[in-house]
Amino acid sequence: MHNTLTPTIQEEFEKAFGTQFVTSLSVREHHARDESAYDKTLPDAVIFARSVDDVVKAVKLCHTHSIPVVAFGAGTSIEGHILPIHGGITLDLSEMNKVLSVDDQDFTVTVEPGVLRHQLNDEIRHTGLYFPIDPGANASIGGMVSTRASGTTAVKYGTMRENVLSLKVVTASGELIRTSSRAAKSSAGYDLTRLFIGSEGTLGIVVEVTLKVYPVPEEIIAAVCAFPSLEDAVNCTVMIRQSGTNIGRVEFLDANAIKAVNQYSHLGLKELPTLFFEFHGSSTGIQEQISLIKELAQECGGADFEWANKTEERSRLWTARHNAYFASLQLRPNSRSITTDVCVPISALARCVRETAEDLKAIQFPWTMLGHVGDGNFHVLMMIDPNNDEERAQAEALNHRLVQRAIAMDGTCTGEHGIGIHKMEFLKEELGLPVVDMMRRVKHALDPKNILNPGKIFSWE
Amino acid sequence: MHNTLTPTIQEEFEKAFGTQFVTSLSVREHHARDESAYDKTLPDAVIFARSVDDVVKAVKLCHTHSIPVVAFGAGTSIEGHILPIHGGITLDLSEMNKVLSVDDQDFTVTVEPGVLRHQLNDEIRHTGLYFPIDPGANASIGGMVSTRASGTTAVKYGTMRENVLSLKVVTASGELIRTSSRAAKSSAGYDLTRLFIGSEGTLGIVVEVTLKVYPVPEEIIAAVCAFPSLEDAVNCTVMIRQSGTNIGRVEFLDANAIKAVNQYSHLGLKELPTLFFEFHGSSTGIQEQISLIKELAQECGGADFEWANKTEERSRLWTARHNAYFASLQLRPNSRSITTDVCVPISALARCVRETAEDLKAIQFPWTMLGHVGDGNFHVLMMIDPNNDEERAQAEALNHRLVQRAIAMDGTCTGEHGIGIHKMEFLKEELGLPVVDMMRRVKHALDPKNILNPGKIFSWE
Repeated sequence: MHNTLTPTIQEEFEKAFGTQFVTSLSVREHHARDESAYDKTLPDAVIFARSVDDVVKAVKLCHTHSIPVVAFGAGTSIEGHILPIHGGITLDLSEMNKVLSVDDQDFTVTVEPGVLRHQLNDEIRHTGLYFPIDPGANASIGGMVSTRASGTTAVKYGTMRENVLSLKVVTASGELIRTSSRAAKSSAGYDLTRLFIGSEGTLGIVVEVTLKVYPVPEEIIAAVCAFPSLEDAVNCTVMIRQSGTNIGRVEFLDANAIKAVNQYSHLGLKELPTLFFEFHGSSTGIQEQISLIKELAQECGGADFEWANKTEERSRLWTARHNAYFASLQLRPNSRSITTDVCVPISALARCVRETAEDLKAIQFPWTMLGHVGDGNFHVLMMIDPNNDEERAQAEALNHRLVQRAIAMDGTCTGEHGIGIHKMEFLKEELGLPVVDMMRRVKHALDPKNILNPGKIFSWE
Repeated sequence: MHNTLTPTIQEEFEKAFGTQFVTSLSVREHHARDESAYDKTLPDAVIFARSVDDVVKAVKLCHTHSIPVVAFGAGTSIEGHILPIHGGITLDLSEMNKVLSVDDQDFTVTVEPGVLRHQLNDEIRHTGLYFPIDPGANASIGGMVSTRASGTTAVKYGTMRENVLSLKVVTASGELIRTSSRAAKSSAGYDLTRLFIGSEGTLGIVVEVTLKVYPVPEEIIAAVCAFPSLEDAVNCTVMIRQSGTNIGRVEFLDANAIKAVNQYSHLGLKELPTLFFEFHGSSTGIQEQISLIKELAQECGGADFEWANKTEERSRLWTARHNAYFASLQLRPNSRSITTDVCVPISALARCVRETAEDLKAIQFPWTMLGHVGDGNFHVLMMIDPNNDEERAQAEALNHRLVQRAIAMDGTCTGEHGIGIHKMEFLKEELGLPVVDMMRRVKHALDPKNILNPGKIFSWE
């Protein structure tokens, strides 16, 4: 049903985009892979969009000629989302990177999709506001919308689902629409904003995002605490959640992950299961939280809190946490990571982590376990030799067992990474064919030619 | 495209449902109107569903024969949502009113759609948990899902959008699906949960709802404060929001509304523009909030805070607030209310309220103004003589002007009531035809025979 980029069609694109239309191998290779363990898949060409008009123009041409079009932001996805598996055009949005407006009365910002989250916070720092959602990678806002990203702060601020107010989207036919007003809430028809969030570029191309932002907390204190066992650390998290405390961050790293970050970031942390905490609020509010968390940690055998009050100490800790992915890869040179991403109800978390640790004993190659345990979400990174099919098969089998374990606990196969091409089978196992078919019918209705990131989330038929 | 309930089709329903299938005039009349000012519209028959199987059976029969089917909960909607304007079956879900499970570790409850929100909180009180979403009326949870309800506590806890974890839905073809797992977050495909929330029974019939619940706050304190002018009260709210304080409730009532609740609930409040506050949290946290709010209120000329610390004092105040709708109707015997529902960005709220008050000077019949100003959401209740076309026209014209004012301020035509049949034109004005057409394509894809609450939100073609 798709066309290939014939010379005549290519000519049309060249005429329309001039030097923004690129077919050089190096550029196509740069858009051929994300942070998954997949081999490179090259697009036929890359268009560097600089404006909404560029996106409209590109999608209209793709629509006319039934050419696949894949939106590309920072390339930090991990399930093969941006691989152009049906060829066609990769639409690079990284040059659409302007913060368009900041409203410090309504606590909203409006940005282009290529804006990176670090850049956003740098550019609005002078307003005393910030955007807390933090998936670890310095992802693009458009990409974070498309995968329904979350990360370390979701436990307090929610995910992209809760923090996107409104979107401008270019539809499959190249029409520019806006999904909602800037009101804090609305009951005006179907929630198209939420429909596009997490749709992985399969329903439209996000060209403008209005986000909620928050006043920088009066005070922020970080802490690290080691626990005798993996289960003790997880149980402490569960108790914190169940206390109803409004903690800013609570992250889990197993002993392997601590070893990796110690090496990579030159930290001297005890190589034990560890929780990273962050407290946001007024100083009295924080003191209340801290005394409670200390109590709960002690009950779970946690000892020697290491505190970080100064910004630089804090950012040293959290940078280390954020580099856990690269640190893990360093445990084995030239490896690629197969990364799991289940999320389970908090009451099932300890059992899910314990059974997964048991399961991991079979694995011969390096692995680390870490996660946003406050949400019931954790990851296993398995550092495979990408050329070793047996290792890949072993890692995929463990991933599959973990997903089945999570689903049996009424959890999900992906807390924040998305489906991409890697988890299409898992999606069926989690929700069942009738539900996937309902998604498919929505896709058919909104992209009848199947040009928008085809072959992702579910099959066309 | 729809069939009428011919004798042979009716026989099939009678065979399938026995005494649960009712065609008596009194029962049909009881399902012919909501709390809007519309005249009665009778369904051809009412089915009292007692189980998911009943709903599946009813929808399958309606699907086979192309008979419209309208879900009915408590009948508290206010834009004509549940009027069977194309005839057919009204499916009364009020007997599906069981709280199915309470999970006091994960802070979730799973309920049938006919459960009323007061009933839910009564039944889970012993767990120390509660469901805070409070639209005022004692609505059914299924209805609150379908209108994306919110109300007085949305300023702290969000709306139904943020508080529904998962749904079981019977689709247009009578298939039972579940939209998601019970995990706190997920990136597993399209957000069907959010697609059904606010879809007003046009995409499926909600038969089970899993909700977030919250620990009852350590302490709750309510307060009432009068202001010299309407604008002073609104400005105070805006300053509270912009301070980032996490207040539990902040409600506005104008002098007319205070007069009405004084009469109806025998309160002695000063007949001035007034804010109702509620503070939730630890006692130290609350004290921090109170001192800040006092400061801000004084800056805006607010005086004589009246405090309510005891449960009965609090509930007396909030019952009065919740009866504002009935209290307003009492201002004019035998009147019906035409109720507006705009929501604007908080920075535009003061101007929107001021210009609306100006506009109301033209109105000869009783009106009140009140709202959830912490979200930028407020209502005008206009008590018309339902048989006086001129009054109705005047009220509708004011409503239209108010909606246009809100849209010009990048707000919405409905913050929480929904579109129903009353606001279909406003929806087009707010979002534009291409967006409404996108919703229509989703409807066509998921309900190709247009049997589910037809003629609501947007027209079929």
